[in-house]
Formats: sequence, C-alpha cells, structure tokens
Amino acid sequence: MTTKLENWAARVRAGDVRAISRAVSAIENRTSEAEALLGLLFPHTGRAWRVGVTGAPGTGKSTLVDRLAAHYRSEKKSVGIIAVDPSSPFTGGAILGDRVRMQGHAGDEGIFIRSMATRGYLGGLAQSTGDATLLLDAAGKDMILVETVGVGQGEIEIVRLADCTIVVLVPGMGDDVQSLKAGLMEIADIFVVNKSDREGAGRFQEQLGAILQIVPDRDGWKPPVVRTIATENQGVGELARQIALFREHVNKSADRPARELAYWKEWLLRLVETRLVERVLGNRASAAEFETLAAEVAARKKDPYAAVSEILSRGGA
Amino acid sequence: MTTKLENWAARVRAGDVRAISRAVSAIENRTSEAEALLGLLFPHTGRAWRVGVTGAPGTGKSTLVDRLAAHYRSEKKSVGIIAVDPSSPFTGGAILGDRVRMQGHAGDEGIFIRSMATRGYLGGLAQSTGDATLLLDAAGKDMILVETVGVGQGEIEIVRLADCTIVVLVPGMGDDVQSLKAGLMEIADIFVVNKSDREGAGRFQEQLGAILQIVPDRDGWKPPVVRTIATENQGVGELARQIALFREHVNKSADRPARELAYWKEWLLRLVETRLVERVLGNRASAAEFETLAAEVAARKKDPYAAVSEILSRGGA
Repeated sequence: MTTKLENWAARVRAGDVRAISRAVSAIENRTSEAEALLGLLFPHTGRAWRVGVTGAPGTGKSTLVDRLAAHYRSEKKSVGIIAVDPSSPFTGGAILGDRVRMQGHAGDEGIFIRSMATRGYLGGLAQSTGDATLLLDAAGKDMILVETVGVGQGEIEIVRLADCTIVVLVPGMGDDVQSLKAGLMEIADIFVVNKSDREGAGRFQEQLGAILQIVPDRDGWKPPVVRTIATENQGVGELARQIALFREHVNKSADRPARELAYWKEWLLRLVETRLVERVLGNRASAAEFETLAAEVAARKKDPYAAVSEILSRGGA
Repeated sequence: MTTKLENWAARVRAGDVRAISRAVSAIENRTSEAEALLGLLFPHTGRAWRVGVTGAPGTGKSTLVDRLAAHYRSEKKSVGIIAVDPSSPFTGGAILGDRVRMQGHAGDEGIFIRSMATRGYLGGLAQSTGDATLLLDAAGKDMILVETVGVGQGEIEIVRLADCTIVVLVPGMGDDVQSLKAGLMEIADIFVVNKSDREGAGRFQEQLGAILQIVPDRDGWKPPVVRTIATENQGVGELARQIALFREHVNKSADRPARELAYWKEWLLRLVETRLVERVLGNRASAAEFETLAAEVAARKKDPYAAVSEILSRGGA
C-alpha cells in the first residue's frame, strides 16, 4: 500500500509543480513532514548541479539568473531556481516577485522558480535552502540555481552548499568597489562583471585583476572573470561554458571523495545545530526572551552561562 | 561563609597565577566548575582590551606578541597571552612552548602566558578562548593578547571575539602572497607586515595597497598597515599606537551599545550551540559514530535527516 507521503514523493519525482511547491512550503515551515519526505527522496539525489549566485543588491543577479536559466532551457536542460533572502528571515518571501518572474517562463514545465525565507533563526535558512536543493534534485532538475539577495555571512553560508559559486559584481556603483565585499574572494569559483558596458568598467576590471593575482589557486582552479550584460543577453553563453568547465574540473579532481565526505560532515553538523537551536529558540516568545537575556548580559546584570542555562532549561532540551 | 568556588574566584581576581592557571585548565576541559567560576567572575569583567593576532604559520606572530607584551609591560600595563591552536583540537596544547616563552618574562607577575587546545569539537575552542579572555579580564589584566596558530575559519571565529584584530603578513614567503588568505580583509582592524626588511617587501606592500584601496571602510576606520621587524623590536611602538588609536575610535563610536548587544547575542547563540552539540558529539565514541554516519550519507546509504535523528536520540538531548 502506498502511503500519502510516498505518493507525494512520487509526484515530486515526476516533476509535479504543485507537489514540489507544497514541499518547499513545508521545508520553509520546517515541518516534520518535510523531513520525512526528504528522507524518501534522498536516495534519488546527487544528479543535479547546484550553482550558487551571490552579489550585492543592484548587480542584476535576478536578470542574470533568468537569462542563464533560459540558456539551459534552450539546451533542453530542466532548471530549478531558488531565490533566498536572508536579510528578512521573518517575512514570507517575495511571492509577487515570483509571479512576475514566472511570467517570463509561462507554460514552461521544465523550470521551477521559488523564493524562500524562513521563520526560524538565520542558520535555519541555509538548512532550508539546502533541503530545497535536495528536493529539486530529486525532482529531476538538471541545473539548480540558488540566488541570494545580498552579501553577508548568511549568504556565504547558503552559497557554500552549492557545487559552484558565482559572485556577481558591477562597475561604477558609487565608489566602484562598494559592490566588492571581502569574503567573496574565498568563495567565488567564477566572477561575473555584469553591466560591463557601464562607465568605469575598465578601471574596475583592473582593480579586480589586481585582487585575483593575489588570490591563490584552489585545487588548480583560478576563478575566471566573465563579462556580461544580462539585460541584453550578452556573455551568458560564456558564463554557461565556464560553469561547465568548472564542473569538469571538479569531476576529475582526485580529492573529490574527501570533499564529498567533508561536505556531508558539515551538513550533518549544521543540521544537528539547527535542530537543537530551533528546539530552544524556535518561536517568537523564546526569541524575545533571548533578546532580553542578551541585553542583561551586555549590561553585566547576568552572566552568559546563567543566561544560557535559563534558555536551555526553558527550551526543554 | 566563603565557598571553595568563591575563594578560587577571589584568588583569580587577585591575580594569583596558580589559581588562574587551574581555571584555564578547567575551561579547556569544559567542566561545570569552570562555568560556575566564570559566572562568579563575570560581573568583574569588561575592563580589559582584547587584541586578537592571526596570520599564517611562519609570520613571526609569537615573537611579535611577545614584543608587544614587553612594550605594554614597560608602560606598567598587565598582560595576558592566550595562544590557540585550532588545527590540533585533540592535543593538550604546547606546554613546552609556554615554558620557553615564559622564561623571557621570568619573575614578572604582571604577565600570564598560556596555550589552549580543546578536547571537544572545533566550535568549542572559540568558546573556550572566549571564556579564557573573560577569566584574564576578571584577573585584572589590562591587555589580553589572543594569538592563533594558523588562518582558517576556526581562527577567524576565535579572533572575532576580540576587540581589535591584527592580521600579520610577511613578504617573500615563496609565492609572496601565500601568506595572504582571503577572508582576512574582512576581519583585520590593523595589518602588520612583519619581517619588513625582507626581499620583495616593496612589491608586497604594493599588492597589499591595491587590495586595501578596494576594501571599504568599516564605521569610518581604514585598517592601517604597520611595518615591523619583531626580532629587532622595530615598529612595535607604532603598532601599540595604532591599537590605542583603534580603541579610541571604537570608544567614541555612536553605535557602540548596539555592537555590544550584537556581540553578546552572538556569544550566547554560540554558547547554546556549543553546549548542545557537545551534549551529542562530546566524546570520542560519538565523534567516530558521526564520521561513520557522514560516510553513509555521502554514499547515499542513509539520508541526512535519519542520520541526525540517530545522533540526537543517542546523545540523549
């Protein structure tokens, strides 16, 4: 006999949009049903290639991701897009934005677009995003594009779960380099200079070159810089080519099994942390209590160990 | 009536070296006694200035820290030094190294030097280091220098708990820039180019300048570059001056209360995580089990959610 959950999993695997969509919502809300579903789907994952795209607001990431998705669709590859906004963990995601974006791909069953937010604490969003990529992987998507809204520690956590990370920069944003935040050199497998027809693009490219000279290769890969004008669909094919080159590079890397193991160890550790922390801070009341306790500690009215003991005892963990 | 613990706390506050040393060991072993002691000491903290010093092995960090300590001693400031080695969390710390280093300050009661390691998981070391700085703060040390052995995510976690972070670089190490790792630009309040009489120092300074041009100010502070030759005690006074300037800058910053609150929120969240994760992974047997489970997940023999449920149920959390 097929259970309701098995039926749901089968529909996800068949690429049913409503079943996938409902599963993303369950992941967002971190229900136990979501984990049971993902448990059923997990053996069918590991086939998709996950591309993380990050960069400051205003760099044209969404347009670039849309164009890249269209490029993959033209190659008959199925695509999943997850747009993540870690800066507003308590909102419900940009549903309106999703609808507008979906219109560009109206009637195309081979593409799935969804914004994600989380109601839990920030660390939970990286977890939920990872869960959603597993879901889309099991749903048979060939390419999964994970796009973050801004650049910060939270975003870096999220894109680190991708197979390939793209950092999008843009010349001429005020001080030119406000769009370049530290920490990005470490995570970028590919740099994109979008809006590369803008004034100051030459100087910007020069500055970026100076930085890249100084960044050591990682496992024999030197992050390339791809110039694009996403709005005019320029450079998108070259970006797809570089993504494919990086995928080849990773696939033939000798230390791939070790990297896989390290990846899952980190994932498991995070999942342990997320589950435990959510158990004790996972609702609005305990979040408010946490804020109050932190203020008391900052004022040295209470010591941090006593504060944490209070948190843990009330959380029932 | 004074309890044994209150007596211990009183001796720490009086600067008794043996009492402090015993407390660091208790912190390393993460005993419940350590937390109770720190709870008693916490109201007497907040006076010291914590300087984190990081950089690749071979940059001469230890010598620099020693010279800086000697400089502060000449100004009649008391000093605590904590040397942290996150790369070997399961060893007992470089006790021999401590003895050698202590000889340079023999008979000086105003300085305390101690290496730290941890027997728990990596995140626990940042916690233990933070606890040790609180301890030395309560013990009346004016300046606390926290020195890490290498540069990696673990080290960054550790120095982020300092009030001021110094990144030590050195020119001419093989490829010149192997010593410069990404992620450092984000955390450095002050850069030191040590061994600045080496060949290639000019070119190195140029490269560093190119990077710093591109890094945006943080709260109106542009990280200065100080040239030192620690072995010859050159530039150490200038480094101390820049540390003092940064301290002034922080003290007059308008958003200081908000930063303090954010600092303690992060500390509490980490403490919650550390306690919970240690509860489930805190011994050799469960660490080995974790490794096995991760390998099973990587091979897709087990899904991550089931693996984590196993971990949590066995941990009794």
